[in-house]
Amino acid sequence: MKTYKQQDLANMDDTERARFVNCLSGFKSANVVGTRDRHQQNNLAMISSVVHLGSNPPLLGFVMRPKSATRHTWENIEESGVYTINQVSEEFFQKAHQTSARYDREVSEFEACGLTPEFEDGFHAPHVAESALRIGMQLVEVIPIQHNDTALIVGEIRWVEVKEKAVKSDGYIDIESLGTMAISGLDGYHSTQRAARLSYAKPDKKLEELDVEGRSKDS
Amino acid sequence: MKTYKQQDLANMDDTERARFVNCLSGFKSANVVGTRDRHQQNNLAMISSVVHLGSNPPLLGFVMRPKSATRHTWENIEESGVYTINQVSEEFFQKAHQTSARYDREVSEFEACGLTPEFEDGFHAPHVAESALRIGMQLVEVIPIQHNDTALIVGEIRWVEVKEKAVKSDGYIDIESLGTMAISGLDGYHSTQRAARLSYAKPDKKLEELDVEGRSKDS
Repeated sequence: MKTYKQQDLANMDDTERARFVNCLSGFKSANVVGTRDRHQQNNLAMISSVVHLGSNPPLLGFVMRPKSATRHTWENIEESGVYTINQVSEEFFQKAHQTSARYDREVSEFEACGLTPEFEDGFHAPHVAESALRIGMQLVEVIPIQHNDTALIVGEIRWVEVKEKAVKSDGYIDIESLGTMAISGLDGYHSTQRAARLSYAKPDKKLEELDVEGRSKDS
Repeated sequence: MKTYKQQDLANMDDTERARFVNCLSGFKSANVVGTRDRHQQNNLAMISSVVHLGSNPPLLGFVMRPKSATRHTWENIEESGVYTINQVSEEFFQKAHQTSARYDREVSEFEACGLTPEFEDGFHAPHVAESALRIGMQLVEVIPIQHNDTALIVGEIRWVEVKEKAVKSDGYIDIESLGTMAISGLDGYHSTQRAARLSYAKPDKKLEELDVEGRSKDS
């Protein structure tokens, strides 16, 4: 094992440090966030920090830096209060990655990157037709992270669209069957292969391996 | 596609809703968090919400619910100010999952689940010997999320230990080669297979596929 001390990280150049530190949290979620401004201009941004916050009420969060390449997304969310989160799959991950380029405000990343905006009835923000799992979100809280001038954007789920066969009878969604990818670092895209679902852990009870439907493999 | 409205989510029973909503953010990071109280009692908890916050200063966050099964972890971090984050790999993911059981305070999950505590010189919190990537963290900020009584725990990286061959010359860490897993929902564990690294996206520039070292596959 090699040890990196705080000073070793400080001594890296900015790009190397960004690549290194971005790998430390483990695999990240791969989503594109769709927004629209008051002039009907659509925007789409790759976000690898979407995180589950709670299921009742159903809340998701993601981390943004207000003045970064994703500033148009930030401004549209503050203005309209709504956005979509769209899982990125093997079929369009290159196009999703391309949305991270710094396009001008008047450019729609949908158009520039070859993705298709669609709208749920009465919902202002566009979702991605190519995505097999899309979520309509309502902004509920912007939480500043003092230590590095970022913010956690907290939203409540308004609707979910998903390929029906991926939803199992116990509520689990087989996102692997949707081709959803995982991200490592700034630029690594990975497909997945399920090892197992595991039973709910209790002290003094042996774990069971479950199949994708949530049934014990032993029974 | 099947559409789930807000009311459809509300109508699910709690367990089904938890399984469903936990799949929506995409793949999650698989880590165990190591802590120690003032009586030298070790604690280890599975956490699937570790998220990258920034690389300069190097910050990671994760979401906790103060009164949940991970309350001992929460209390130890508040008391000692330090903790470790350890990537979970194929070799011990069942043991890592078992740490999510509600053990009594006087039980060390290391011992109960068959994992080995180790200590970095002078660092109070234990890390996991079985993990190929471990991080020593200093608490810097606890940010309440008003909307559902959780909190974002923000920490700064003090040290990193990683298998040296996984660190590439440009700073990227090949966490797939470490066997690091990704999680879906509450209980799905997945291995990964790299599709590609992709070049830094710029408008009007074609993306290149990179190999694991960050070199263009076309050159």
